[in-house]
This record gives sequence, structure tokens and C-alpha cells, in this order.
Amino acid sequence: MAKPSENSDIQWMRRALDLAAKGKGYVSPNPMVGCVIVSEDGECIGEGYHKKFGEAHAEVNAVESVADTSKLKGATVYVTLEPCSHHGKTPPCAPMLAKLPIKRVVVAMKDPNPEVDGQGLLHLRNKGIEVDTGVLKEEAEALNEFFVHHQTFGRPFITLKIAQTADGYIAAADGESQWITGKASRKQVHRWRREYDAVLVGRTTAMVDNPSLTVRHVSGRQPKRIVIDGPYELPRELNLFSDKFEEKTIILTWNKEASATDADPMLRMMQQNYFRGQVMQVPKMDGHVDLRQAFKILGNEGITSILIEGGQQLSSALLRQGLVDKLELFIAPKILGGGTRSIMDIGIFKMKEIADLKNVSWTQIGDDMLLTGYF
Amino acid sequence: MAKPSENSDIQWMRRALDLAAKGKGYVSPNPMVGCVIVSEDGECIGEGYHKKFGEAHAEVNAVESVADTSKLKGATVYVTLEPCSHHGKTPPCAPMLAKLPIKRVVVAMKDPNPEVDGQGLLHLRNKGIEVDTGVLKEEAEALNEFFVHHQTFGRPFITLKIAQTADGYIAAADGESQWITGKASRKQVHRWRREYDAVLVGRTTAMVDNPSLTVRHVSGRQPKRIVIDGPYELPRELNLFSDKFEEKTIILTWNKEASATDADPMLRMMQQNYFRGQVMQVPKMDGHVDLRQAFKILGNEGITSILIEGGQQLSSALLRQGLVDKLELFIAPKILGGGTRSIMDIGIFKMKEIADLKNVSWTQIGDDMLLTGYF
Repeated sequence: MAKPSENSDIQWMRRALDLAAKGKGYVSPNPMVGCVIVSEDGECIGEGYHKKFGEAHAEVNAVESVADTSKLKGATVYVTLEPCSHHGKTPPCAPMLAKLPIKRVVVAMKDPNPEVDGQGLLHLRNKGIEVDTGVLKEEAEALNEFFVHHQTFGRPFITLKIAQTADGYIAAADGESQWITGKASRKQVHRWRREYDAVLVGRTTAMVDNPSLTVRHVSGRQPKRIVIDGPYELPRELNLFSDKFEEKTIILTWNKEASATDADPMLRMMQQNYFRGQVMQVPKMDGHVDLRQAFKILGNEGITSILIEGGQQLSSALLRQGLVDKLELFIAPKILGGGTRSIMDIGIFKMKEIADLKNVSWTQIGDDMLLTGYF
Repeated sequence: MAKPSENSDIQWMRRALDLAAKGKGYVSPNPMVGCVIVSEDGECIGEGYHKKFGEAHAEVNAVESVADTSKLKGATVYVTLEPCSHHGKTPPCAPMLAKLPIKRVVVAMKDPNPEVDGQGLLHLRNKGIEVDTGVLKEEAEALNEFFVHHQTFGRPFITLKIAQTADGYIAAADGESQWITGKASRKQVHRWRREYDAVLVGRTTAMVDNPSLTVRHVSGRQPKRIVIDGPYELPRELNLFSDKFEEKTIILTWNKEASATDADPMLRMMQQNYFRGQVMQVPKMDGHVDLRQAFKILGNEGITSILIEGGQQLSSALLRQGLVDKLELFIAPKILGGGTRSIMDIGIFKMKEIADLKNVSWTQIGDDMLLTGYF
């Protein structure tokens, strides 16, 4: 059943996926893409990946890396995502590849972007190039789960991060939550921050913990910082509004025009003038920010992924509304027996309604256990 | 630094520990012990282990298994526990060994039994036999953690088993708890039951779940079943009081003489006559069975280990009183967000008082995670 080339196809595609992953955190809202060019006699003659949003695509970088272009004749191009057929920030890749004397293109997954949707593959086939798809498809889709989700649903991929004791508490009765999990777990959160387009906290967490939500202990780029502040009243002094990443902060409020009716409109206006971040007006629902609508608005703004670092209320509201795509739950080998529960009141009352996580994995991180699962 | 024989000492002692473990569930309140006899030229000439309480000790079985007794000359005896020096159900092993033409005895751990406490080793040394101790000591102590605890503190080793969702709930709001964890986890509980001297549940669990607490899905011996029934009022129809293991059931009550003052003394007396298990009078504290005193009484009765399979109230009471030695916490990759919490009100109010588990291990069992730790 297996074609003779199947093993080497997998091997080269794995290399292309490794290259693609190097763009993590820098290409959004584009997908991560990697490309490897292999000559007719099985030699790797070119490699490339999409490095940064707005810059060259993986295919272009790979073709440009080929030293001896005579070896392109009869070559195979491995690319982790269907080459694009539409003009975006850069010219389309499928026609570019079709002009080369290559024999075959191997693709891991089709582009879920409705503007591409098979057109890239069709173009290559019409030009007489052999096209194979689906090699390491699942790995490719997992790598680009944010992009796929954003393209498919038009809203960001939402990951809920919780750090709790073994018995499900996120803070002691005295309100203290530092630290339930160990250093290695906290470092992992910083690694994630640089990979998500944005991190998000609720009003209470912003107020009580005054978090910075910056990337520390690891290198990488700072994500946007979204804070939910329905009434638009959080104090200007909070780190999110006053540190060096102020411009990366987005406030979600149903009350953007508060300044006009505020008791001290001059002060409010001055504050607004001073704030160099972004204030987004979002709909209100039952007295709170309408989270589903807010995510749609953020999706339209090109935010493909959000890491939720909120507290019990925000976590539970998101779960109740079915807005969580992925759970990252740190469990520390400690017992509190009281305090603030990680999750409560999410609308499940019967055992048969229990929320079973899918594609579950358990990973030990330091002394803690990380449960990863999908809804 | 390492003696030439050190590597082979470890190898033979590991074999002796493997043999010892075969007695698990059958030798209590004795320890599990294994013994290997190795000739002067490094050949294993005898093996044995303590198979069942009241039967021969490991050393005797090992010596009896030697086919060519001439090879005992200059041999080394590996035994996982210091040979006994006192007369118990069987004659003491140290004098028996001292009469053999052996050269050396290697022991993993000393006997914590105050009646032995180094006397066995002393006896061997006085008879001119070389004695080395401490080889795989930690493994030996872990294997016999129930015995060591019982010998040291005079009460059973208490393991608390909990099966909860990832967010710390043991039952849904509708009271249903079957099943949060998967088949593999439930099977593991049956494996444990055959290894503990007793399993224990509280009054509410006995009433609501009507458990059998029998060993199913795996082979092994049935442990005693202890049920806490302070007022001594649980109905006679419960499985614990009426199935084929009725004689294995122990009722802990502060009200053993209830029959004398009961509204229907005739009925009560008949019930008591019918019940073929054991009823133990234990002290009362704050309206409940005094758990600490109850464990002392059970320890005096030769119960060295108890697996607690109770609900929230019993689990929390034991933790609050510092009576749990080991936690076995199954965590299922599921979310309930409400219902009955696994643990609450154990007297911890501040983060700095958090109960850190020791010697933590995480083991994936089916889809679930098992957290094992010590207090």
C-alpha cells in the first residue's frame, strides 16, 4: 500500500514542520508555514519558513535559498500548508512555484482560508505539477490550531489557563494565590504568553493582582494584553495601563463614552488622552461585557488566539457560555480544603452532563501536573 | 569506595524484595520478608518468602529450599528485614541462621519491632557471622510502610483514596458519582483493597451508596470492611451487613449498648444476634466517633493498614485531624463546576499553611491521573 516515497515524504515534511514552528509568535494572523525543497536525487537543496507577518512566505524563502537552481528540475517541494493563490501582502506562491521546473508538490494540509480553499492546489495541478496532500496533516493542523480556528469561526482560539491545588482551589481563604504552582509551571505560562496573540484578564484580577502580563524568565515577544472593564473605571495606575507595554493593552468596555457623562469629565478625558493603548466598545449582556461578541470583534481585528489568565468568575463565565477551546490546568500536589474554587456554576447539574475533555494529555512540569484538553 | 560485592549485593537484595512482595495482603500484621541464599561462588542456592501470617518465615523457607546443603558453607544470606530473635508464632530466625555454616548475612532494614530492635543482628555477629545492613533500605521500608508505621505508632497506616474531577468535585449536583474516573482507575482500587488490612467508609457513604467494598475485577483476598456508625443505627439490609463477607465487617460505634435503651430492644437484640461481624465500642468526641482513638483500638487488634473510601465529610475530618498518612487522588479529565467538593474545611486558611504533599508521584491510569503523596 505504501508508496516508495512515503517514508521520505514524512521525513521531509517533519523537517518542514520544524521550520514552520520557528515562526511561532511572529506571523499571526498568518499561519506558520515551513518549506523544504528536495532534488530529484533526494538531496535537500532549499529550506525556508514564514518568519514574520508581512514578510516573505515560506515557499519564497525556500526557493531563494536554493544555491544551484539547475537542481530544481524534477525537484519535490514540501510545504506544510497549501500554497496561496491570492494576492495578500506578498504575491501568491502557487503561481510562483508553478513557474519552476519542479515535478511535485507535497502539502500537509489545505488552507482553511476561504480565499484559498483548494485554489492553490488546483493551480499547481493545472500547470502539470504532481500534487500530494495530507502528509502529517494532523501535526500540521495542531501546529496551526489558532489559525485554523480563526479562519473557520472568525473568532480567536481561546485557551483557559488555571493554576490550582490538587483539590481544586486557586486561592486560600485569605485571598492569597502566590504561589500554588511551582517555578517551572510559572515559566511555562511565560512561554505561552509569547506564543498567543493576546493574554486576557477580568476586571477583578486586574484590580486585585495588578498583573503585568509581560513575558519574563524566557525570551520572546510581548503579546497584547486585554482587560475586561465593562464600566470603564479601572484606575490608571495599574501596571497594564502605565508600564512600558501600555500600547499593547486593550480595554474591552461597554462604556467607552463614559467620559461624556462622567462626574469628572475633564479628568476622564485626560486619562483617555493619556492612555496609549486601545479602548474597544463591545456589547453588554446581562450587565456584563458580552464575551462572545467581544471575541468576534477581536477576531475581526486579527487576534487569532487568546490565553485567558483570569480568575474564577471569568473562567466559569467562559465555560458556561461554551467559549473555551482548550484548557491548560496546572495541578499542584498541595491541599487547601478551602478558599476560592477554580471553577463553579457552569451550568452542569447532572453526572450525564459532565464535561469530558478531548485529546487529553498529562505532562509533569516540575512537581506539578499539567492537564491539557479540548472542549 | 564501593566494596567489590556491592553490585551483586544490590542485585540479590532486589530479588529478595521481589520475593517479599509476593506475600502482600497475606502476612499482616507481620511484615513481608524475602530471602535469597547465595553460595560462596556466587550461585543462588535457595529462595523463600513469608507466604502467610502464622506460617514459616522467609529465612526458614529459603534454607529449606536449598538442595545441596554442602553449599551453605561460606554462603551469604540476603534478607529484606533483620531476622527475628524472639519467639513468636514460629521459632526465631537469627539463632537458626547462626547454626548454619554461612559466612555473611546482608539485611536491607532493621526490624522496627521493639522486641527485635537490633537483637537479631547482634545475635548473628556474636556467633561470628559477618553482617551488613542498609542494602536497598529505602525500597525495603517503602515495601513495608504499613508494618513500619504500625510498629512505630501503634496505629494503622491510613491511606485516603479520592476520585474526583479535574476541578475537584466527587459528585454532581444531583448526587451522582458513578463514574467520574475510568475503568482502569476503578480496577486499581480493587487491587489496593486486597493489599490493605481493611477498607473503611463513613456512615453517609454506607447509607447512600450501599457499597460492598469487595475485591472484584482482580484476584486476591477480601480485606476487613470497617464502617463508622456512631449511633449504631445503619439498616441491617446494607450489603456490608448481609452479603457473603458479613463476617469481615467491623462496625465502629460509641453506642454499642444501644440495644439496651433502644425503642425496640427486642428487634435490636435480634439484629445484633444475627450480625456475624464485629461491633467495636469506640470513644465519642464532639458527637462523632473519635477517629484517633478508634485507630488505636484497631491497631491493637492487629489492623496495620486502612484504605479510606469515604466521602467528603470523612476525608475532611481525617485531614483536619492529621490522621492521613498517604493520599491516593484520582483526577479525571472532566469538569463539573459544581456538586460535592472532594475536600473542604480542613482548618487551612492561609497560603502559608498550605498542605504540601511529600514524596509525590504522578501516574497516568487510563485517561485519569493518579496523584500519590504523603503527609
